[in-house]
Amino acid sequence: MAKLNFASDYTQGAHPAVLKALCETNMDFSSGYGTDEYCERAREKIRVSCAAPKAEVYFLSGGTQTNMTVLDSILRGFEGVISADTGHIAAHEAGAVEFTGHKVLPLPHTLGKLSAADVEAFAKGFYADGNCDHMVFPGAVYLSQPTEFGTLYTLKELEALRAVCDTYGMRLYADGARLAYALGCPQNDVTLPDLARLCDVFYIGGTKCGTLLGEAVVIPQPGAIPHFFTQMKRHGALLAKGRVMGVQFDALFTDGLYFAIGAPAVEKAERIKKALREKGYTLHFDSPTNQIFVRLTDEQYVSLSEKLIMSFWEKPDESHTAVRIATSWGTTEEDVEKLIEAI
Amino acid sequence: MAKLNFASDYTQGAHPAVLKALCETNMDFSSGYGTDEYCERAREKIRVSCAAPKAEVYFLSGGTQTNMTVLDSILRGFEGVISADTGHIAAHEAGAVEFTGHKVLPLPHTLGKLSAADVEAFAKGFYADGNCDHMVFPGAVYLSQPTEFGTLYTLKELEALRAVCDTYGMRLYADGARLAYALGCPQNDVTLPDLARLCDVFYIGGTKCGTLLGEAVVIPQPGAIPHFFTQMKRHGALLAKGRVMGVQFDALFTDGLYFAIGAPAVEKAERIKKALREKGYTLHFDSPTNQIFVRLTDEQYVSLSEKLIMSFWEKPDESHTAVRIATSWGTTEEDVEKLIEAI
Amino acid sequence: MAKLNFASDYTQGAHPAVLKALCETNMDFSSGYGTDEYCERAREKIRVSCAAPKAEVYFLSGGTQTNMTVLDSILRGFEGVISADTGHIAAHEAGAVEFTGHKVLPLPHTLGKLSAADVEAFAKGFYADGNCDHMVFPGAVYLSQPTEFGTLYTLKELEALRAVCDTYGMRLYADGARLAYALGCPQNDVTLPDLARLCDVFYIGGTKCGTLLGEAVVIPQPGAIPHFFTQMKRHGALLAKGRVMGVQFDALFTDGLYFAIGAPAVEKAERIKKALREKGYTLHFDSPTNQIFVRLTDEQYVSLSEKLIMSFWEKPDESHTAVRIATSWGTTEEDVEKLIEAI
Amino acid sequence: MAKLNFASDYTQGAHPAVLKALCETNMDFSSGYGTDEYCERAREKIRVSCAAPKAEVYFLSGGTQTNMTVLDSILRGFEGVISADTGHIAAHEAGAVEFTGHKVLPLPHTLGKLSAADVEAFAKGFYADGNCDHMVFPGAVYLSQPTEFGTLYTLKELEALRAVCDTYGMRLYADGARLAYALGCPQNDVTLPDLARLCDVFYIGGTKCGTLLGEAVVIPQPGAIPHFFTQMKRHGALLAKGRVMGVQFDALFTDGLYFAIGAPAVEKAERIKKALREKGYTLHFDSPTNQIFVRLTDEQYVSLSEKLIMSFWEKPDESHTAVRIATSWGTTEEDVEKLIEAI
Repeated sequence: MAKLNFASDYTQGAHPAVLKALCETNMDFSSGYGTDEYCERAREKIRVSCAAPKAEVYFLSGGTQTNMTVLDSILRGFEGVISADTGHIAAHEAGAVEFTGHKVLPLPHTLGKLSAADVEAFAKGFYADGNCDHMVFPGAVYLSQPTEFGTLYTLKELEALRAVCDTYGMRLYADGARLAYALGCPQNDVTLPDLARLCDVFYIGGTKCGTLLGEAVVIPQPGAIPHFFTQMKRHGALLAKGRVMGVQFDALFTDGLYFAIGAPAVEKAERIKKALREKGYTLHFDSPTNQIFVRLTDEQYVSLSEKLIMSFWEKPDESHTAVRIATSWGTTEEDVEKLIEAI
Repeated sequence: MAKLNFASDYTQGAHPAVLKALCETNMDFSSGYGTDEYCERAREKIRVSCAAPKAEVYFLSGGTQTNMTVLDSILRGFEGVISADTGHIAAHEAGAVEFTGHKVLPLPHTLGKLSAADVEAFAKGFYADGNCDHMVFPGAVYLSQPTEFGTLYTLKELEALRAVCDTYGMRLYADGARLAYALGCPQNDVTLPDLARLCDVFYIGGTKCGTLLGEAVVIPQPGAIPHFFTQMKRHGALLAKGRVMGVQFDALFTDGLYFAIGAPAVEKAERIKKALREKGYTLHFDSPTNQIFVRLTDEQYVSLSEKLIMSFWEKPDESHTAVRIATSWGTTEEDVEKLIEAI
Repeated sequence: MAKLNFASDYTQGAHPAVLKALCETNMDFSSGYGTDEYCERAREKIRVSCAAPKAEVYFLSGGTQTNMTVLDSILRGFEGVISADTGHIAAHEAGAVEFTGHKVLPLPHTLGKLSAADVEAFAKGFYADGNCDHMVFPGAVYLSQPTEFGTLYTLKELEALRAVCDTYGMRLYADGARLAYALGCPQNDVTLPDLARLCDVFYIGGTKCGTLLGEAVVIPQPGAIPHFFTQMKRHGALLAKGRVMGVQFDALFTDGLYFAIGAPAVEKAERIKKALREKGYTLHFDSPTNQIFVRLTDEQYVSLSEKLIMSFWEKPDESHTAVRIATSWGTTEEDVEKLIEAI
Repeated sequence: MAKLNFASDYTQGAHPAVLKALCETNMDFSSGYGTDEYCERAREKIRVSCAAPKAEVYFLSGGTQTNMTVLDSILRGFEGVISADTGHIAAHEAGAVEFTGHKVLPLPHTLGKLSAADVEAFAKGFYADGNCDHMVFPGAVYLSQPTEFGTLYTLKELEALRAVCDTYGMRLYADGARLAYALGCPQNDVTLPDLARLCDVFYIGGTKCGTLLGEAVVIPQPGAIPHFFTQMKRHGALLAKGRVMGVQFDALFTDGLYFAIGAPAVEKAERIKKALREKGYTLHFDSPTNQIFVRLTDEQYVSLSEKLIMSFWEKPDESHTAVRIATSWGTTEEDVEKLIEAI
């Protein structure tokens, strides 16, 4: 019998409605590089969803590509980007931001989150240092919503970060690789219009939220990043058949699909967490979105691994293993039930 | 009535067999980043087609990304890459190779092609120059098969280039964005095994040859590029759902599909060229693959543009416009007939 | 007997007045990184000489370093720099500008000079190209005064280049590695205040004009390059003992020394050229400053090389060799006489 | 009365013997770019001092430039460099290493020093991480001898680091900006031959050890860094008048001068530390070479600052200030006495 696969939220293809749109438009003709009507339609729907009628919207292939292209485009040469030390750009992108010439400035995190106070202290300390001209200037703040730990920034926290950015002339950039699962989370109070209001640039994740690939970069204030199209090309991030992403995001933003797919995944994660607790498992930490972090004894780990594909997270001590279990738009009721039975 | 669209070979989605494979596998689970079984299956078929049983094969999203990632990975810091001055990396990639820190060394071309003699003269002159240590070393040769002009290198020409590369310690890299149309061309005498034997690295184009996206990089000698996986990640070129490309290339290399789709497109291009000649049009230059270059009077250009979407190529003089007409795997008999009628 | 050395203008140490200043200040204490009083004094004198009272002035070690640091700081990511294809950055800096991620856009030259007409045609053609967003934007124009051929831009030519830059939003940057020899040339009509008025940034060469090392970057409009100090540091171009250059430039700009050292060198070059002509030598091309380009038969080359160290320039044909003979601030009357005798 | 200046070891010009050599050779002719006889003479003396008869030796202008050029040349694209988080490259070089595309991987320090155990744990953990291919590979270890804290690696510690580097395929690079003060320290047991035996590359500092500028990069195994000359050029680090550094290093390595200038500076620092302790001052931490770190009350800081120029180090708490006092080759007996009197 095939193992249950809860390793991640990018283990399946596209949401059926997204795939259907790809099939229906497959033999249509369109122009290249995102200049087609599908992209334009998707852009318009995203603008509406973001209450940002003049926003520029671009489609890129994946998260690391998006992060490096956006950050290199918004940072000046002498600037780096502040990130939680657990931020994806700091830890798991093989130095892609550094490849573009910019340092990632790591700050401590709380369950994956930066605090406005820490960012402010860092920026204040930087400018107070008589040697600051010999150091990398903090030019932007990178955060992910939800974070790599599945946690959420509150609206208040985001506003506080925005205020610090304003004080110290920094741009604010949000990585929304799993944004649908934030938007579908009951605890979440940050909307797309909030992100558009508070961020200089952010992206709406597709790859982990129902598309085969693709991330939608939103620049709320048009012109804020000059010639971003050419920047994309220069970073290898301009797809010839941009329509492939336009069609998919058009589908995701039709009839509120993007807002609908997160909640069931989060609700399933909650049920799994409840079952885990009831069966005596220990959560490694609590996380409100579609990712579950469990601390297993090594025996539990071996035994569960026979039935279930999970992601290794870390080894908190000699005899335990922390793992990640993720639900997604594609998780079925049946698989949830099997999982609960299996644990 | 919709205009006929012959602007390019990337104006439609995927070949039906490719799309079918995507649909059939859509809800299957797989691991990420190209470690899945679809990618592995595609790799194995490509190895067989290339008669390169140990080749490493990687899937990247698009041509510019592939070129910059491969070239940055095979060049040492003090090296640049020789290219025809009309080469895609020299002219139309927004400086992506330079972005990675390497100079493109442009040489004159003949219908898009480099000659071994020119490359040899350049390399010889370089090392003869007493100041060469103050200059960019030629570390690799970039060519495209077919070229941006739709022309083909012969086997003999490629072997001559390989010999020059051997003499001067340069790597040879072939951009096969439109490779299916070379392989499907009656004049062509360069096979995939030839490319695998002669090149240090090359890529088999998907985007223009039947996939939604994706290019397959082939490194015939395993280990020739250390840690190319991490290089991909660092260049933003590692797709989370690598399977999306694996599934498509698996389909393209099943039952010889990749070798079957080029010939009809080339044959259609031949018929269109014949019709153009018969109707008194002037070819801008002759080109044996799926791209046709026509020199129109400006009146012809305006008039044809009402019925036909073409690509602007250049203005050879004040009163003429050269355009490109391209067929593809998706071009229908019906559209060819309509086009011949329209001209 | 030692050979006469006319190979270059960087074959000796420092002008005696410059060396004297280094000796006199040697044991004085100063702060680091160009924040010392010698640098400040030199800056103030340079501002006065440039009639640019608010100019920012920075001292860097050498020409390639200066070019790459300045250009990377004034170009945006999607921009490259136009240069004569014989420009130092295009030909003889080992790809340092490309190392910083920017393409050098080469244009044809006339004796090392760009023409405003060519630059305008290029920029106009660029923006007229429907694919320009896929190409490297021309963001700046690089020129050298005098050029690598020892030739001079006239004021009118510089003004025309400035006008083109204004039309197309490009910055103008002048490399003044040998500027003293332009300023000391009777034909020259471009003053330091002209350069300060017409260029966004330029540098006043020290290495070839009397110092042990050092180039003075002048940014006439303060703030035009944000945080250039940190850009210098980031490019490895910030010397701990900045004073070493401050002391030297202070000496060079005291009592008009910088304006005095060029004329004798140019005058000596004129006498040498006259002698060459009289003795039947052929100038490779005429050049009005301190560099002389002579076309020798290979026999002449071998014979002269026994008495004289020259620089190889190029081989114009099978039986000739073009060489460069350079005078400098350090060239003695005696050596000029010996040279004239020797030829 | 002028304040006493103990701010740093780069506040004065050159050691008299070095300056004398510059003066004596000033009007001599030489070839450029370090190909001259002074450089060659200095190289030969350095090879002898290092017991590395085949070593390649290059002269660069300053420390940051040297670090970025060397590290970018020895790292492969997918690699970064391990450094103490207080290492100069990590903290005070404005992101110069990142500018070259490589991440600095910071590890905790003990008074500026890395431990072999920490480096080993990091490397081991890296390769044990299933996601390591998504991360920056540790390609080299950077350390400074003495460190930024004035502390010294013992021979045993260096050998342990070398062993870890061997185990994990990392290169070892030592920054010797203040190396003369290590060599002149009684506690030191690491010789130049030791560095040449244990490091893949290291540099012998000039700027802080008696020259106007210049650092001598030693590559004990010739060919270990291909075309380092061109790498220097490409990084803007090739000085036209390389002789300026050759002459100075020739002087420094004549009659053991480099080995003679450190000890007096260290001995003076010891006397100052003794006096500080006797007068009730608290050392911020103890440091055996030419740098002294004192923890002052803010009152002491204000009061001392009236007589003495020191360097601000950090504010350990609200009411204290830690400062650095540095001696150098140029520190006089008289100034030491005045300082002891003043405190």
